[in-house]
Amino acid sequence: MTYELFYWPTIQGRGEFVRLAFEATATQYVDVAREPGPHGGVRAMQHLMQARATRRPPFAPPFLRDGDLLIGQTANILFYLGPRLGLVPTDEADRLWAHQLTLTTMDFLDEVHDTHHPIASSLYYEDQRPEAHRRAAAFRAERVPKFLEWFERVLAHNPAGPAHLVGDALSYPDLSLFQIVAGLRFALPRAAARLERDAPYCVAVHDAVAKLPSVAAYLASPRRIAFNNQGIFRHYRELDDPA
Amino acid sequence: MTYELFYWPTIQGRGEFVRLAFEATATQYVDVAREPGPHGGVRAMQHLMQARATRRPPFAPPFLRDGDLLIGQTANILFYLGPRLGLVPTDEADRLWAHQLTLTTMDFLDEVHDTHHPIASSLYYEDQRPEAHRRAAAFRAERVPKFLEWFERVLAHNPAGPAHLVGDALSYPDLSLFQIVAGLRFALPRAAARLERDAPYCVAVHDAVAKLPSVAAYLASPRRIAFNNQGIFRHYRELDDPA
Repeated sequence: MTYELFYWPTIQGRGEFVRLAFEATATQYVDVAREPGPHGGVRAMQHLMQARATRRPPFAPPFLRDGDLLIGQTANILFYLGPRLGLVPTDEADRLWAHQLTLTTMDFLDEVHDTHHPIASSLYYEDQRPEAHRRAAAFRAERVPKFLEWFERVLAHNPAGPAHLVGDALSYPDLSLFQIVAGLRFALPRAAARLERDAPYCVAVHDAVAKLPSVAAYLASPRRIAFNNQGIFRHYRELDDPA
Repeated sequence: MTYELFYWPTIQGRGEFVRLAFEATATQYVDVAREPGPHGGVRAMQHLMQARATRRPPFAPPFLRDGDLLIGQTANILFYLGPRLGLVPTDEADRLWAHQLTLTTMDFLDEVHDTHHPIASSLYYEDQRPEAHRRAAAFRAERVPKFLEWFERVLAHNPAGPAHLVGDALSYPDLSLFQIVAGLRFALPRAAARLERDAPYCVAVHDAVAKLPSVAAYLASPRRIAFNNQGIFRHYRELDDPA
């Protein structure tokens, strides 16, 4: 059975963390809402979310269908896929640790979103610009350093060395860290350049992931949706460090 | 080995979701930061977070110690404890579903926090009041209904009946839903009274959990920290529905 990912078809967003897991391992999957025809598109995704017959309805995309199983929440999807795709060690302690790293990554992502939407997701950015300006300043000054310092520390303290977040091999938290670094570079290029100077291990993980043949091929393919200002990472110059 | 919970000693916050799991099952645990002496208090908690010897440092409290294992992130702790405390069915599909429910509960909790801290956690509420007023209005009008409708739908569609979120017995997501309803009643009593009219199943779960002998005894004990305005659920009249 082919894995089916359901996510918004025009943004990277949270779905990108799942796409990266599939792509890095050359796993076959269908990105359902990007498929044409009656079984594709956003309507197919929304139908599945809202249908009475859906026993375990997800609160929001992304969600994964694997046979009879429907699994929502990005971190939950990765927890499920990790061992199946060979993207996490087999012992419980490492699996919980990989999940913990991912949950913290998702918390960070929520904060990224709220830099441009600090008041309401239902409003346009343009309707909450003063608040966004204030929140983004605090985000750049306090939150990005706190998260990057933590990831840097995790890498520095990994008994197997700083090349990976978990153990001595690629795991899905490495892919997620790649996405965080790539997203920050798009959204806040000046702040990212400044803050990366104190996060060399994080940058090295980003670079190593980008160079994996499977990931490099994905990034160069039309399957990779470009960063854009409908996603979670958005570039508004006024939210970045001053020039 | 006794479970050790590490969390801020003067608030319910995210730690309360773990405390409820222990208390509902009459499981022995130590709430370390509330203990006196050199091995207790906030210092013991912060020492463990920051010590070089801590191989898997949590990003933030709460975290759990069970023997050699240190587990951070509320939802991850509950995922670990669920089967050990008999608070989740044994099959993988139900365990993932219980976790998904909890992850969505934690997302909701983040949004509760940001109603009074929409700009920065490092600032006082008083320094972000206009923004909080705006965010709380959107939260009451759009977000609370969306989350409660989803929980209501999950309960209505449970093949085993609407008394529980997962299967036909108490599980940790029921305890978390109790906490959400209790918290909303404290923080936004007028909005909660209005919105609960459309969420009778959620209210029934809250009431049933509150009446469990173990939970009732806990709620009446000094172990239960009262809601207060240092926690995640805070009561500011101006953030509630107009009188």
